[in-house]
Amino acid sequence: MPSFIFLSRGAMDGIGSVAAVCTTVSFLPQLIHVWRRKSARDISLSMFLLFSFGVACWLVYGLGIGSVPITAANAITLALALAILALKLRYDGRQ
Amino acid sequence: MPSFIFLSRGAMDGIGSVAAVCTTVSFLPQLIHVWRRKSARDISLSMFLLFSFGVACWLVYGLGIGSVPITAANAITLALALAILALKLRYDGRQ
Repeated sequence: MPSFIFLSRGAMDGIGSVAAVCTTVSFLPQLIHVWRRKSARDISLSMFLLFSFGVACWLVYGLGIGSVPITAANAITLALALAILALKLRYDGRQ
Repeated sequence: MPSFIFLSRGAMDGIGSVAAVCTTVSFLPQLIHVWRRKSARDISLSMFLLFSFGVACWLVYGLGIGSVPITAANAITLALALAILALKLRYDGRQ
């Protein structure tokens, strides 16, 4: 596929870094939201099981190809996704 | 960073593909869950705003480096995340 956006390599790396930080950090407000509300019924169990499995595969992939950014971003995302999953199981069991 | 997992390039590509499919498709059960329950109060608005912005950056990055897998996976994820965001704004406004 040809490149459709004509930016320097440095600009592309910057956009990629912003992308990685945002998609990784975004799970933190969700974790805080569930923690504060003590409720996670609107959150899909299937989503977080499938997502966590996918992120675990990204982690293995990052370790396999020796990529620090892929490994680090997915280790943090996996920890946050598993924490949300744990709170969901805890709060849903009560309701 | 050295490689910590000793698998063939083909096996690594397979794990990366499974990872991409799982993290992309995982937002579909969440969309169906919110649609069926007509409620998204346990879902964090901050998470989906930040996540959607991050995925949009990944999409620009994919287009910029001419990567079909990054562009395709993030186009699908962005569509699903924006649909969840739209349902959240619709249902939360009612409550």
